[in-house]
Amino acid sequence: MSFRGFTRRRLLGAAGAGTALIGAGAAGGYLAASSESEAPGPAEAVVPFRGVRQAGIVTPAQDRLHFVALDVTATGPIVRAAVVALLKRWTTAAERMTAGAEAAPGGAVNRNPAAPPTDTGEALGLPAASLTLTFGIGGTLLDKLGIPRPPGLADLPPFQRDQIDPALSGGDLCIQACADDPQVAVHAVRNLVRMGFGTTAVRWSQLGFGRTSSTSTTQQTHRNLFGFKDGTNNLKAEDAAGLDEHVWVPASEGPAWLAGGTYLVARRIRMHVETWDRTSLTEQESLTGRLKGSGAPIGATDEFTPVDLAAPGPDGTPAIAEDAHIRLASASNLGGVKILRRGYNFVDGSDGAGHLNAGLFFVAFMRDPQRQFVPMQSALARRDRLMEYIEHTGSAVFACPPGLADGAYWGQSLLEG
Amino acid sequence: MSFRGFTRRRLLGAAGAGTALIGAGAAGGYLAASSESEAPGPAEAVVPFRGVRQAGIVTPAQDRLHFVALDVTATGPIVRAAVVALLKRWTTAAERMTAGAEAAPGGAVNRNPAAPPTDTGEALGLPAASLTLTFGIGGTLLDKLGIPRPPGLADLPPFQRDQIDPALSGGDLCIQACADDPQVAVHAVRNLVRMGFGTTAVRWSQLGFGRTSSTSTTQQTHRNLFGFKDGTNNLKAEDAAGLDEHVWVPASEGPAWLAGGTYLVARRIRMHVETWDRTSLTEQESLTGRLKGSGAPIGATDEFTPVDLAAPGPDGTPAIAEDAHIRLASASNLGGVKILRRGYNFVDGSDGAGHLNAGLFFVAFMRDPQRQFVPMQSALARRDRLMEYIEHTGSAVFACPPGLADGAYWGQSLLEG
Repeated sequence: MSFRGFTRRRLLGAAGAGTALIGAGAAGGYLAASSESEAPGPAEAVVPFRGVRQAGIVTPAQDRLHFVALDVTATGPIVRAAVVALLKRWTTAAERMTAGAEAAPGGAVNRNPAAPPTDTGEALGLPAASLTLTFGIGGTLLDKLGIPRPPGLADLPPFQRDQIDPALSGGDLCIQACADDPQVAVHAVRNLVRMGFGTTAVRWSQLGFGRTSSTSTTQQTHRNLFGFKDGTNNLKAEDAAGLDEHVWVPASEGPAWLAGGTYLVARRIRMHVETWDRTSLTEQESLTGRLKGSGAPIGATDEFTPVDLAAPGPDGTPAIAEDAHIRLASASNLGGVKILRRGYNFVDGSDGAGHLNAGLFFVAFMRDPQRQFVPMQSALARRDRLMEYIEHTGSAVFACPPGLADGAYWGQSLLEG
Repeated sequence: MSFRGFTRRRLLGAAGAGTALIGAGAAGGYLAASSESEAPGPAEAVVPFRGVRQAGIVTPAQDRLHFVALDVTATGPIVRAAVVALLKRWTTAAERMTAGAEAAPGGAVNRNPAAPPTDTGEALGLPAASLTLTFGIGGTLLDKLGIPRPPGLADLPPFQRDQIDPALSGGDLCIQACADDPQVAVHAVRNLVRMGFGTTAVRWSQLGFGRTSSTSTTQQTHRNLFGFKDGTNNLKAEDAAGLDEHVWVPASEGPAWLAGGTYLVARRIRMHVETWDRTSLTEQESLTGRLKGSGAPIGATDEFTPVDLAAPGPDGTPAIAEDAHIRLASASNLGGVKILRRGYNFVDGSDGAGHLNAGLFFVAFMRDPQRQFVPMQSALARRDRLMEYIEHTGSAVFACPPGLADGAYWGQSLLEG
């Protein structure tokens, strides 16, 4: 059975159809949507919820993000049971919403006069818009449940120049909602948050737009708020060997509940765009290591020309400076380390000092944050001159279990393992 | 000459083409784009910048908003000259960007190594996406310039239950950027902000999505974050007589510089969606006066059935409650008052208390805020039971001069009148 074309728009006209969805999980590989992406028009596209991996990791990056971190507020001996019950309800609702249905049967126009609607309604009539919901577990939740943290969930060390705000960091659980319509992503997060009352509360939440890292060779590279193409050399969905090496946690390495899963590192990076905008083009390109127009490495003309870190410039020194961002972040500078980025631009109003509160919400998936993100960010924080223009203001790490088989629920491998 | 199809994507491939834009203003009526909206695909659509009215008022509401309020930071005898110079530069840049071009010739890949780029670059390769830039003048700017305020720019009175944050209110100038791509709207605001350094600074800024009020009969009604269709009975672009009566300032009424213009009232309305979501459907519909599914008035079945405030319900009392939102806000309850709404949903992260910081950014255009918004909001603040679920946290009023003839700049009628 395919979920394609099954939308809230039709639901509204055909009451009862919603029940046909429940338990109809399955659906093929997690990349099915991308291989057919030309066909049904993006608004109607549905990304399968179940599969070997969670959707929303290598799914071709949708254009809008709503990311939420939650804390478990339930306490005492009932915590585990409360969390399990919530994760079961969340899974059912998430599967429905990614298929374009309402959060629960009955939905926004439930006729039980004594009961609140089981869906909040703001996505009524909207198609699935390629919604994916990706679930992660924070180290603090394991602490609360008395389960040992895998090494990958160790707290990140402080990095030079960090300006981390605890109110924008951490969390017991996270849900990443990506879609091509922000109202669809917001609706999904809001309904899951609503279902968590009494068990969870929102810790922080971030909206994003204009995905900056393509995750598929079928996608063009978008630009960050420094005006540069961002993510040209990102790992891609089509590179199965690269994903196995850098993204998926092998059974030999992680706890059993995380085998085939991955870690998510989120960093809220405020960009001082006003300062950047007063910098010359040459300086911007020198700091970055790429040309602003084409995205090509300095010295080349095509965005996808492999980066040659040794190539000399006109004056004989390397064309790509010793402290250029793409050199410091390159696999060759980091002993082969790569990560799968999936970031979004943001503008969160203004900062009260006459500037836009803008930046990049960095999301990356990797096999081991301690061996990948930590050395990468250490190198950048120490030497990257781009750091003069940015500030890391939020930070979090979550473990994302593998995808769900039919009937399984989010976190089941952890909680029943 | 038409700007249609002239995009940054082509600019990037054909350097120098940008210069052809300058001074090529003109373009027909401000509604041209809407009457052809089926043709060129929304991403490439261009809304003419010049015309009888400013674009972005009755233009069919685009899906994304970036609104910014700025204060003039320049002081002393040079203020007026500094403001005039900035408004001239802004006008040139705004006209270029609404046509899908970069903010200035040279742009993001300007090759002058000593100079910062004249465009920040994050919209390179993106089409115009129906971008409109609408300009407004706050009463505080008139105070600074020693120009008397028209009555419509009098400060709004405090309303019951107001929780207005001065940091999210007021402003000497405003720019409303609407587009179908948030990156295009953000790029435009950011470049105008950048050009204002030394003369203006950001006071507050608001992003929005999922337009809640359609402004044209060609559009479907979208839903707010209470899950209800919002703006069914809004004034529409096609109702010329209604706009003349309720939106455009007649020459007989306003100062000469505002004749044919309008006033913009902005209110940031935080919605306590968590409380709302615990309310029964019947209660939600009773508070609103409409059905959640169809948007029809209670007692009717079609969204566009005219609201009959006298129709009795099953128990003989009016089907639409005495304190229902649509009754209190109706023209018949307010002596014929109507406004043109153009609001957007927002989620600004979380509130630190476990909830999403979500709501409606209310934007409305009208002939006289004192005779339209003030009585309407007074009635709602006093009696609307929806007020239990919302909180007005920001407030501003701006005067929006009429559209620009060829060669004219934003605010010219005020500053050279």
